[in-house]
Amino acid sequence: MLLSVLPDIKELIEKKDWYALRGTIAKWPAPEIVDLLLTLDKPERVLLFRLLPRQLSEEVFSYFEPEEQNALLKELTDEETRQLLASLPPDDRTALFEELPGQATQRLLNLLSPEDLKEVRQLLGYPEESVGRLMTPDYVAVRPNWTVAQALEQIRQKGKDSETVNMIYVVDDSWKLLDALELRRIILANPTDYIEQLMDYSVVSLSAFDDRERAVYMIQRYDVFALPVVDSNGVLLGIVTADDVMDVAQEEATEDFHKGAAVAPLKVSYREAGIWSLYAKRIGWLITLVFVNLASSGVISAFEHTLSSAIALAFFIPLLIDSGGNAGSQSATLMVRALATGEVKVDQWIRTVLKELGVGVALGLTMGFAGSLLGYFRGGPAIGVVVGLSMLAIIVVANIIGVAIPFLLTKFRLDPAVASSPLITSVADAAGLLIYFVIASNVLHL
Amino acid sequence: MLLSVLPDIKELIEKKDWYALRGTIAKWPAPEIVDLLLTLDKPERVLLFRLLPRQLSEEVFSYFEPEEQNALLKELTDEETRQLLASLPPDDRTALFEELPGQATQRLLNLLSPEDLKEVRQLLGYPEESVGRLMTPDYVAVRPNWTVAQALEQIRQKGKDSETVNMIYVVDDSWKLLDALELRRIILANPTDYIEQLMDYSVVSLSAFDDRERAVYMIQRYDVFALPVVDSNGVLLGIVTADDVMDVAQEEATEDFHKGAAVAPLKVSYREAGIWSLYAKRIGWLITLVFVNLASSGVISAFEHTLSSAIALAFFIPLLIDSGGNAGSQSATLMVRALATGEVKVDQWIRTVLKELGVGVALGLTMGFAGSLLGYFRGGPAIGVVVGLSMLAIIVVANIIGVAIPFLLTKFRLDPAVASSPLITSVADAAGLLIYFVIASNVLHL
Repeated sequence: MLLSVLPDIKELIEKKDWYALRGTIAKWPAPEIVDLLLTLDKPERVLLFRLLPRQLSEEVFSYFEPEEQNALLKELTDEETRQLLASLPPDDRTALFEELPGQATQRLLNLLSPEDLKEVRQLLGYPEESVGRLMTPDYVAVRPNWTVAQALEQIRQKGKDSETVNMIYVVDDSWKLLDALELRRIILANPTDYIEQLMDYSVVSLSAFDDRERAVYMIQRYDVFALPVVDSNGVLLGIVTADDVMDVAQEEATEDFHKGAAVAPLKVSYREAGIWSLYAKRIGWLITLVFVNLASSGVISAFEHTLSSAIALAFFIPLLIDSGGNAGSQSATLMVRALATGEVKVDQWIRTVLKELGVGVALGLTMGFAGSLLGYFRGGPAIGVVVGLSMLAIIVVANIIGVAIPFLLTKFRLDPAVASSPLITSVADAAGLLIYFVIASNVLHL
Repeated sequence: MLLSVLPDIKELIEKKDWYALRGTIAKWPAPEIVDLLLTLDKPERVLLFRLLPRQLSEEVFSYFEPEEQNALLKELTDEETRQLLASLPPDDRTALFEELPGQATQRLLNLLSPEDLKEVRQLLGYPEESVGRLMTPDYVAVRPNWTVAQALEQIRQKGKDSETVNMIYVVDDSWKLLDALELRRIILANPTDYIEQLMDYSVVSLSAFDDRERAVYMIQRYDVFALPVVDSNGVLLGIVTADDVMDVAQEEATEDFHKGAAVAPLKVSYREAGIWSLYAKRIGWLITLVFVNLASSGVISAFEHTLSSAIALAFFIPLLIDSGGNAGSQSATLMVRALATGEVKVDQWIRTVLKELGVGVALGLTMGFAGSLLGYFRGGPAIGVVVGLSMLAIIVVANIIGVAIPFLLTKFRLDPAVASSPLITSVADAAGLLIYFVIASNVLHL
């Protein structure tokens, strides 16, 4: 972005005048420097990165993706590596280690100080996609019997290492979480007050073994910037912050988009995914759906005579089955998303199915009218009746299939997002062909 | 949630012992009270709500959806209404007014104090879905020539009204934004230091006329809890906070999910949308896609003789066009999401199309092999060759259609999310039928 407006930066790069370049970019925000570094070739990227002032290089490093962090680390000395690793926030460091092959992880772990090592191992002990992996142990804790002045002194001393001091946590002697106080409440209080006087003992916390989606839900529900994480005894282990949770929410939404198109979750970004990994994430559902599509072929087989005695029926096959598939995709996507955001609860299925029945009839009547006109002009009154009636029935049935499958999946404790557009389309197509040929053979007496 | 574990609450409701009930729930977090109130009938909900202690009732009120806030307000006296309105944060108040019919808005605006009225009107002056509608004017501003002690005094005085004091904004005499300082940096500083000494003049801000999606992007990019909003002269107007931005991100994701299934954005939650509104959001695309499907019918028409001389070709129509549609949906969804999250940039289209060509060939070879087996067992070697070759070609072409349409839409400054699964499926179906019949008539010499 900045590159295009600053031709002199381009010139400095071409001239390889790295010192002048360093001077210019040292005042940029770290994400902009990351963008610039990513436009350079690898040897030049490492060169320019090593020239950055120490504190800035640490900040810039933390903005790279784990893959690029690893590539950079390979080029640095052990001492430089140790320093960068120590400067990373613990949760980013965990993300980096999770991405690395086992051997590289071991090499890097050996470079960490014993305290950092313990921290990383502890974070790594929790299941993947759990709150434990997301939390950072950098927070400020105070005791109920301290004064506000003592607490402020603790914040001044420990606050430099903290991911956030916006929330201050109150713990007892065994580090059990008692309360969470906003920093502003401590600042606004009288310095001689006791922390206990500010407490209302109403604290919402997460378990380290909770799914990270729960962290997203809770932070949204309670409109807070951070939530404490406790073990089964209520002992404070760490905190999760809103900025990390936003990244999780985006990743989870991307997974749901991919599932909605019958793509298995990629785990890495699209840019980083290779051809074979993309192939592997897609072929499974494509092959599975072939079996669903065989039901459609079976329906055509069964009605071979109907079709060959009125070949005009074939013209409307794509129109009818696509329309059914489209309506089914629409209702399935509305359901999957409403269930995912909690707008609709599973026990409201009767009301929801009835509502979609109403919508389906309205859509079916409109589409049926359009279909009967097309059928009439293409094949006469009888075909008009067949296509119109089939369209009405297909839209209503496909709409109900679209709304029912996500509910059924949820009922059987499966992920409703499996009800992808391709799956619903394939199921609706088989049902649609059956409806079409049954109506056709009855109306046309074939 | 709490209801199910606390049978005595149920008992109190049945006994209509509202005073005892109030005593019990007064200690609950506000969102739990909201859930309880929503399970009650309207007269009882109003009754119990009015019994809540004043401060709690204000907090509970702010957690209701605008629809329910409006329903509650209708039952309250003008004085109660005025008090509740005054207690709402300005951005929530704006959300409430936006949801109301014009006349009700006017009645409520008349109840506001002149200052509050000005605030609401000012917030309402910005375009819908702009940052101006999202921002709150409640923040703490300090001057560069103040000492840290003076700044802390200002935070103590103004902090009670502030949505957030985690970031403190530095402005000049004409209220131009100079810098943003984390509260922790002010607390950690020496009380006799000047604010100017803490400043680095590197502040990232939003324009009030920016799209609110930009607020989501910027807050995620810079990992901050709040961003300042300025006018074209750089004057500080308000701030947007991470919790409001998370709600926007969720709404935008829901809109993209709906667009991905060819449903126009609902604007309200699924639960609140009526049958006619759902009908209206869906019928447009269904009718539009009928015209795309007519291309498929046209292809079958053109190859009527091919089809009637080898009716077995009809069996494979659903299998081939559904497989193509599914592969196209997969690649289109991957593209739309990668473009939306910025993982793939528009100018990387060549590399991306080549990558998807590779994926398409790998998928096509696998699916083509499966298709040739099915064709062989159903109709002999010639049909096996036709189905296998068609499947390969259809998957490759559909995959390219899926990746190309989102890029083309972006190129012409249209929303790539229009490349919904139903649209891609319908386009891929017409292309697939053409490929199938051309290959069939050549291989079978029809």
